[in-house]
Amino acid sequence: MIEIQKAPESKIDKINFDNLAFGQVFTDHMMECDFSDGKWQKPIIKPYGPLSLEPSARVFHYGQAVFEGMKAFKDSNDKIWLFRPDQNFERINKSSARLAIPEFPKDYFFEALEELLKLDKDWIKKGTGNSLYIRPFVIATEAGVSAAAAQEYKFMIICSPAQAYYSGEVRVKFSEKFSRAADGGVGFAKAAGNYGAQFYPTNLAKQEGFQQIIWTDANTHDYLEEAGTMNIFFRIGDTLVTAPTNDRILDGVTRKSVLTLAEEFNIPTEVRRVSVKEVVEAAKAGELKEMFGSGTATVINPIVGFGYKDEKFELPKMEESYASFFKDKLMKIQYNEAEDKFGWTYEVKQ
Amino acid sequence: MIEIQKAPESKIDKINFDNLAFGQVFTDHMMECDFSDGKWQKPIIKPYGPLSLEPSARVFHYGQAVFEGMKAFKDSNDKIWLFRPDQNFERINKSSARLAIPEFPKDYFFEALEELLKLDKDWIKKGTGNSLYIRPFVIATEAGVSAAAAQEYKFMIICSPAQAYYSGEVRVKFSEKFSRAADGGVGFAKAAGNYGAQFYPTNLAKQEGFQQIIWTDANTHDYLEEAGTMNIFFRIGDTLVTAPTNDRILDGVTRKSVLTLAEEFNIPTEVRRVSVKEVVEAAKAGELKEMFGSGTATVINPIVGFGYKDEKFELPKMEESYASFFKDKLMKIQYNEAEDKFGWTYEVKQ
Ligand SMILES: Cc1ncc(COP(=O)(O)O)c(C=O)c1O
Ligand SMILES: Cc1ncc(COP(=O)(O)O)c(C=O)c1O
Repeated sequence: MIEIQKAPESKIDKINFDNLAFGQVFTDHMMECDFSDGKWQKPIIKPYGPLSLEPSARVFHYGQAVFEGMKAFKDSNDKIWLFRPDQNFERINKSSARLAIPEFPKDYFFEALEELLKLDKDWIKKGTGNSLYIRPFVIATEAGVSAAAAQEYKFMIICSPAQAYYSGEVRVKFSEKFSRAADGGVGFAKAAGNYGAQFYPTNLAKQEGFQQIIWTDANTHDYLEEAGTMNIFFRIGDTLVTAPTNDRILDGVTRKSVLTLAEEFNIPTEVRRVSVKEVVEAAKAGELKEMFGSGTATVINPIVGFGYKDEKFELPKMEESYASFFKDKLMKIQYNEAEDKFGWTYEVKQ
Repeated sequence: MIEIQKAPESKIDKINFDNLAFGQVFTDHMMECDFSDGKWQKPIIKPYGPLSLEPSARVFHYGQAVFEGMKAFKDSNDKIWLFRPDQNFERINKSSARLAIPEFPKDYFFEALEELLKLDKDWIKKGTGNSLYIRPFVIATEAGVSAAAAQEYKFMIICSPAQAYYSGEVRVKFSEKFSRAADGGVGFAKAAGNYGAQFYPTNLAKQEGFQQIIWTDANTHDYLEEAGTMNIFFRIGDTLVTAPTNDRILDGVTRKSVLTLAEEFNIPTEVRRVSVKEVVEAAKAGELKEMFGSGTATVINPIVGFGYKDEKFELPKMEESYASFFKDKLMKIQYNEAEDKFGWTYEVKQ
């Protein structure tokens, strides 16, 4: 059902796999599937290369575009594994629906993705921390600058080899003024425009010595929501606290997996609104033991400090942190090194 | 300073200028200017044609893109006029700043735009209602899927001949649930993502028999803000009322021109928050005489009815409407047929 055009030769030998910047190098092939005449046409896997689009293509003008982020892992027996890919598939269609983009068929998604991974399997390196980052995305390609949903789209999958993601020590700033998403808006979707809108406030935070922003609710800025590409957890005393998802917050796959693991391991958890005030007070009282972000790219990213208004706080160094506990548990499942009780892993049969 | 590559032949003879759909046909040339190595390179005017971009170009993934909309008019002496182009230039840079896109130099903008219009001047047709719609836009072109501001961009100008914009009778729905912009967000910018986010709620409104949505504030949905591509005016009794601009609302050039004309012609005006409740009550009391939208594409667009929750309201037909008064005044200035007291017109010297 899928058309495959093989690259005449691989560029894999030119890549230094010991020194990969995130998302810069792409594999030999990509998947492309066009929506036209009211339906998704046949998916094509072809050599990775540039797209040709009209300057009036809607994606350039109206940001009608959504994406996903997922990873493939290789175990010691050269088996290839995905982690909860059904979640990413469902989420990209949820994002698409909110952006008035036609949903993509499930069989196309899985068949095309698996074919692509089999073709580019040498790009998935063994060893903990190594993975292949997979970027499915959809863009409105129809020509014409009228502000309405397009009739033509491209669904694509591109893949980029990734090493363990170490971003240095992460300090975050709690947003007081800027917002990421509105009630009734598109914050829950992985809509392209949500990300570009964060760069300027994040650059301002960087100038103050922070790496990321923790977004607060747009109405009051009193409640902590999520980071730019991670959901956020707080360990207050021994309780793990995170905000509930809603139409402003991305329903992260890593977040929900952490919550399931916490339950399994009897870690007390509260999913509820988290106020800035509470976190600042807990930090002052020495009760804020940890903060960490969760997301596909980074898995679990410890946060070592935060800033709010003119105050800066450093978090204690924990011997037995929840962050490293969850990171270890998750990665063992992802690499097929631990029992997969919850049916999260998905083997790409070769 | 600008490089010009002329199209070998014009396609103008193939165009039916009596039957133009908005934004579908483009002129023979376009302007392209790349940002790389930390600066805007030399602008190039070249034949209109497709762009080649990496599939990982940031605009596809993170919606780092802004645009403008402006028009050129031809008077009976074949002179070419722009309307307040300084406003569009300033606004695209304001939008860019919010999207972490480098600002574009003023001299590049005006020189390139004027060269382009001179080259494609035959595409600007005389006669009231005819114009050339001009679409400057900026997209992040840098390859690589890491969620941070790009280091490479393209600033482009494309042009599309337009006829008088008649959209049929427009009925609008007041939004109760969906939102266009958050406080502290990017609503005031012409950011690509703001538009794609509106298509789905607008499609739902269309299914209920409305053509557009009037967005309300995301916090309470109690106050009327603007439409998808127009600012909104209400005539209550004989007073013209419109919402103040803020970080959620686009500071429309047509809106501010209407306000200036209203002052000149002693039309009582109030720029203040407009509540849904007030407008519904005014409609019920027969005091809501008119609603209209203002924007470059449509100039002034009368609204004949609106819906809120389960109620629908039709507006009276006015003999001497403010809508047609302002439309006439504005267009006379735009086509150089009336005195330009305010220095709004800008001649493109040929
Ligand atoms: C805004 C946002 N929040 C959270 C996440 C984490 O989600 P996941 O764990 O599914 O990768 C991401 C990244 O995907 C994101 O873009
Ligand atoms: C969201 C929005 N509001 C209002 C307007 C009207 O602005 P202007 O009168 O400058 O065209 C536009 C169109 O430019 C717009 O996109």
